[in-house]
Amino acid sequence: MSDLKQAIVLRDDLDISKGKAISQACHASLKAYKKSDSELRSEWERRGAKKVVLGSGDRKVRDLYEEAERNKIPASIIKDAGHTEVEPGTVTALGIGPAEHDKIDKITGELKLIR
Amino acid sequence: MSDLKQAIVLRDDLDISKGKAISQACHASLKAYKKSDSELRSEWERRGAKKVVLGSGDRKVRDLYEEAERNKIPASIIKDAGHTEVEPGTVTALGIGPAEHDKIDKITGELKLIR
Repeated sequence: MSDLKQAIVLRDDLDISKGKAISQACHASLKAYKKSDSELRSEWERRGAKKVVLGSGDRKVRDLYEEAERNKIPASIIKDAGHTEVEPGTVTALGIGPAEHDKIDKITGELKLIR
Repeated sequence: MSDLKQAIVLRDDLDISKGKAISQACHASLKAYKKSDSELRSEWERRGAKKVVLGSGDRKVRDLYEEAERNKIPASIIKDAGHTEVEPGTVTALGIGPAEHDKIDKITGELKLIR
């Protein structure tokens, strides 16, 4: 099996606090994890559970989610309940994988790491 | 059952990028989740999987971890492999729960939210 990773894509065009961004990223990570194949995710964890954190705009996040679905890669899009900071239903984050590096890169390859 | 939440405690005295902080928080969230009681965590998810993101220094993070363990609250401390940004073995984050609000607050009550 090739190397495994999970990609977490955060909206980089929202004005939200660091704490809020982190909680949305954790939602996305956990939900995508739960959708993934149990053997594959155990192997991912055994290898250190590599995660990459990427930034993208609203439209693109939705497109990436659909592309992951079409490619049968476990993915979960997060819409915030809007109790704080953003309007209800705002897309905030997307989790993709864990899955093979190259499969993830085919979807997220154009995005930049969040620094 | 009283309200449920998960606390994610991040080192606020480390000079790491936002992306690195997010990936460490996600590690902590997932590992603590996996340690938690399956019925309780399902209930937590059904209620929206509330997460709070808090900041703390190194020594304090270790103390909080031990306190959670003593109180039988599922908790997971993250030490980074040190491939990037920090020295190998650096404690970066701590996940506590999901568990009842008051049990978490008894441990993390003094900490400030990360903004």
